Amino acid sequence: MWMETKAEVEEARRSRASSRRRVLNSLLLCTGDMEHLDKYMQDKWFVLQLAVWGLRGVTRVILANNPLSGALILAALYWASPWQGLLGTVGVLASTLTAVIMGQDSAEVTGGLHGFNGMLVSLLMGVFSSAGDWYWWLLLPVLLGSATCVFLFSGLSSLLDRWDLPAAVFPFNIIIILYLLSTGPNNPYFPHHSATPPGALEPNGTEIVVLQVIRGIPLGVGQIFACGALGPSLLILGAVLLYSPLLAVHAVLGSAVGTLAGLSMAVRHGSLYSGLSGFNGALGCMNVGGLFFTFSWRTHLLAIASAFLSAYVDIALSNLMGTVGLPACSWAATLTATLMLLLTGSLAAYRIPTGQVMAPERNLRSCSQWEAGNTTDRESTDV
Amino acid sequence: MWMETKAEVEEARRSRASSRRRVLNSLLLCTGDMEHLDKYMQDKWFVLQLAVWGLRGVTRVILANNPLSGALILAALYWASPWQGLLGTVGVLASTLTAVIMGQDSAEVTGGLHGFNGMLVSLLMGVFSSAGDWYWWLLLPVLLGSATCVFLFSGLSSLLDRWDLPAAVFPFNIIIILYLLSTGPNNPYFPHHSATPPGALEPNGTEIVVLQVIRGIPLGVGQIFACGALGPSLLILGAVLLYSPLLAVHAVLGSAVGTLAGLSMAVRHGSLYSGLSGFNGALGCMNVGGLFFTFSWRTHLLAIASAFLSAYVDIALSNLMGTVGLPACSWAATLTATLMLLLTGSLAAYRIPTGQVMAPERNLRSCSQWEAGNTTDRESTDV
Amino acid sequence: MWMETKAEVEEARRSRASSRRRVLNSLLLCTGDMEHLDKYMQDKWFVLQLAVWGLRGVTRVILANNPLSGALILAALYWASPWQGLLGTVGVLASTLTAVIMGQDSAEVTGGLHGFNGMLVSLLMGVFSSAGDWYWWLLLPVLLGSATCVFLFSGLSSLLDRWDLPAAVFPFNIIIILYLLSTGPNNPYFPHHSATPPGALEPNGTEIVVLQVIRGIPLGVGQIFACGALGPSLLILGAVLLYSPLLAVHAVLGSAVGTLAGLSMAVRHGSLYSGLSGFNGALGCMNVGGLFFTFSWRTHLLAIASAFLSAYVDIALSNLMGTVGLPACSWAATLTATLMLLLTGSLAAYRIPTGQVMAPERNLRSCSQWEAGNTTDRESTDV
Repeated sequence: MWMETKAEVEEARRSRASSRRRVLNSLLLCTGDMEHLDKYMQDKWFVLQLAVWGLRGVTRVILANNPLSGALILAALYWASPWQGLLGTVGVLASTLTAVIMGQDSAEVTGGLHGFNGMLVSLLMGVFSSAGDWYWWLLLPVLLGSATCVFLFSGLSSLLDRWDLPAAVFPFNIIIILYLLSTGPNNPYFPHHSATPPGALEPNGTEIVVLQVIRGIPLGVGQIFACGALGPSLLILGAVLLYSPLLAVHAVLGSAVGTLAGLSMAVRHGSLYSGLSGFNGALGCMNVGGLFFTFSWRTHLLAIASAFLSAYVDIALSNLMGTVGLPACSWAATLTATLMLLLTGSLAAYRIPTGQVMAPERNLRSCSQWEAGNTTDRESTDV
Repeated sequence: MWMETKAEVEEARRSRASSRRRVLNSLLLCTGDMEHLDKYMQDKWFVLQLAVWGLRGVTRVILANNPLSGALILAALYWASPWQGLLGTVGVLASTLTAVIMGQDSAEVTGGLHGFNGMLVSLLMGVFSSAGDWYWWLLLPVLLGSATCVFLFSGLSSLLDRWDLPAAVFPFNIIIILYLLSTGPNNPYFPHHSATPPGALEPNGTEIVVLQVIRGIPLGVGQIFACGALGPSLLILGAVLLYSPLLAVHAVLGSAVGTLAGLSMAVRHGSLYSGLSGFNGALGCMNVGGLFFTFSWRTHLLAIASAFLSAYVDIALSNLMGTVGLPACSWAATLTATLMLLLTGSLAAYRIPTGQVMAPERNLRSCSQWEAGNTTDRESTDV
Repeated sequence: MWMETKAEVEEARRSRASSRRRVLNSLLLCTGDMEHLDKYMQDKWFVLQLAVWGLRGVTRVILANNPLSGALILAALYWASPWQGLLGTVGVLASTLTAVIMGQDSAEVTGGLHGFNGMLVSLLMGVFSSAGDWYWWLLLPVLLGSATCVFLFSGLSSLLDRWDLPAAVFPFNIIIILYLLSTGPNNPYFPHHSATPPGALEPNGTEIVVLQVIRGIPLGVGQIFACGALGPSLLILGAVLLYSPLLAVHAVLGSAVGTLAGLSMAVRHGSLYSGLSGFNGALGCMNVGGLFFTFSWRTHLLAIASAFLSAYVDIALSNLMGTVGLPACSWAATLTATLMLLLTGSLAAYRIPTGQVMAPERNLRSCSQWEAGNTTDRESTDV
């Protein structure tokens, strides 16, 4: 009879373990890439599906991929400015819908890959517009610009695919520059502000305020969405934390590095205070530290180097493009990330193929699994 | 005996059909790509062959490939300005001869692919020169610039070949910008005008003239050859019509779209009146509508989108390059067309491989043949 | 017995031939690529090895690869300005060490491929700095800039590898432009001079001095290392002569062609006198004439064409970048050389694969060997 008892005990142990796993699983359901949601949504209404694709697109801006984070970020944008929130929503939906109509690859569409460029274009059009909020004509370039992002994303993907490079935010950067160039400050229909280069001379006698500089670090994370208010920026940082703590740490670290780089080049104070010095550093740091490379001490150092490089390149490009009144957007971080992905040598071994990029924690886990090799019972120990 | 009669009747029917086909064929001999001419020219004098290659090169500018159209276009240029006509002739011959000397692929040379960039460089050098007509020293940069196009065409082809992209007019665009940059407005030997960006402010109180704007649409087709007179522009349009009616329709449509885009961005009136707003739209529309994509309603819509994109990109680039006094030439249309050729998704199925591009009507026919598959007697029904 | 005598005679003949070969060999030991040195250095101290890698890196700037030439060039730089010499030394060591730490391919490191970009960045930072010599803070950007070159070299190599193109001095050109852009003339920490475009107007009444122009030709070779003094420039030319007489001839020829191109475009006199007009021509000429192409009359003509193209492109780019106070560095020669390597047609047959590029004389010899095919006793006739 003890044989059966043993079996029962084993059964009870298993059931307890599985219930523990279930609780942990439900907690973890809302973090990471939330792939289970895709299966659940498969036969739901198109509008609901589109909403999830759009929310994924919103998080893609900040290199995450989680609809809940997307909802948080969207809330932060509406909090900062309802008009900007609306523009962002319109942008992400317009470009996702264009991708559906153009028959783009469905895995890309459902993953939100066709939404984030459109969203950024819309947000930046709103920020640079000097016609004020609720200028409804602006929806015209917003819709057109967001739709064009799909063309550019598709075309650039074909081009960069040869080196397994992602199109990233190149489409956004190209479209917004073209928009600002074709309108210009004095356009009667779509006027906009000129960007001030960070190397512009400071009026005499202004002292740098350390607290303001430190405040600029979290703002640097918000500036990825062109958001310059502290509360919403922290909410956006929280959204990244929900997706992946490792990514959030790199975001803050990168923003701090960017601010440091700005200080070393004596950029104007406004650039430091508003977080504009930090956001390219943040993006550059997030790209390398965990997302496209397996996390380790070596890639962590590379991420810091990438943040510095992004920040310095941003200062250079901002000064260059500022001579014709243009902002440098996230050209610096995008170019730096592309460069890092092309690196050869011993660091290239940490590179994760573009198609297999997931939340940094997942990347780390699948990597350790590979290393563990053929040991059995792996499935039961990792959640 | 009626068996033989039947055979005779059949014979007569066939002969009538074949004679009908022969008449139609002779009419159609002068349209399309005129491939039969190449066979006929094979053992003729080199000078005659060179003339045909040159005339093909002339039409390549406007995405056609027909020596008769080339003769018409050349006539139009001589009509508009004999000096410009001469420069164009020198340019097309110089670059074709350079290609022969450099031992470039003979199929490319006979197809006129090494002539059109040289021609455009020469025409634009003439148009921008502020030394007046018949300034014979200009032949020096014209010859050098045209010859250099062959180097660029060959090099860029190797580069772009990986994605099955054509080098198109990239060589022309690069060479003319370099020429204008290296001389500058005050050069003692080769002075030139500065380009006025389309976003330049209008003097107060000038009203837009609708008729002038409409006149700008056909002028947009002529501006592809830097020709700003109405008569020659219409003759050039006629030359395109001879090659392919579908292409001519898209040329006018694209120019109209470009003018519309110019209006929506409030460009200066001179730009609209002269057709400069329209020519990039026309090129963008022709590239997609029929030439590189099989004609259908979906690609027709794509052609219109391409025309809009080309036109807006042209306004943006013209404003940017205008800050240093440079024209944007046809950068916009060339970049847009390249982007369209890279598109993935369901539209990519309509794409015609670069090596198989022919007159739109031929493309359409060979496509329907493919679809018809193995049905016999196809040869007798299509002319 | 005469049989043995005959054998002895043969033996004596052989010994004389071999001793002659040995003397010739020892004389030739110091020319060309000095590959034997690598074997000899294999088990020496790391510091000695690093010195050799660094010296090879120094010569890579001028497309040579010989540690003795490197020592001569370094001596020339210290002669011209000890501070510049120091900066160059720091730069080449910093970037070579970064490559070692980053685990780059060891064949590349030992060949000096990771040193030359860092050296050029350091030299140019020194030349453009307006803080004067011995401004020790400059070592900070020098170290960072040199280290970054390794990232760019590695990334660009992956990119360009698809077409068997070398990364060449693209990293240097990119980094120095970014550095100058991010600091700007009024930077409180790292101020620098603005570059004067060659098309700048000359003050009235200045006559061109022929002797000065001719003096500019050897200076053009020195300007490759940003060195504007005649003595050191001649020493640098001597270093090239030691590596390969053919390369030295092309250097002078290219510089002369560049000066001629400058005269034809009426650039300002200072540009001609200082050798700045010539150095892009020299680089363009050296790249084609012997280095990347097997030497022959056809490639010699191509080298002259390449020199002209490099020189004109340099004038164009200098005028463009001069509008924002930037120098065009060696963008022109690098782009032209890349274009030449992409050429198709009959000239492509002379192209040497990037991995097999050696001193021009060696290229020539291995080529004639290929042509000679399987004829025996080849080894004894060529040294």
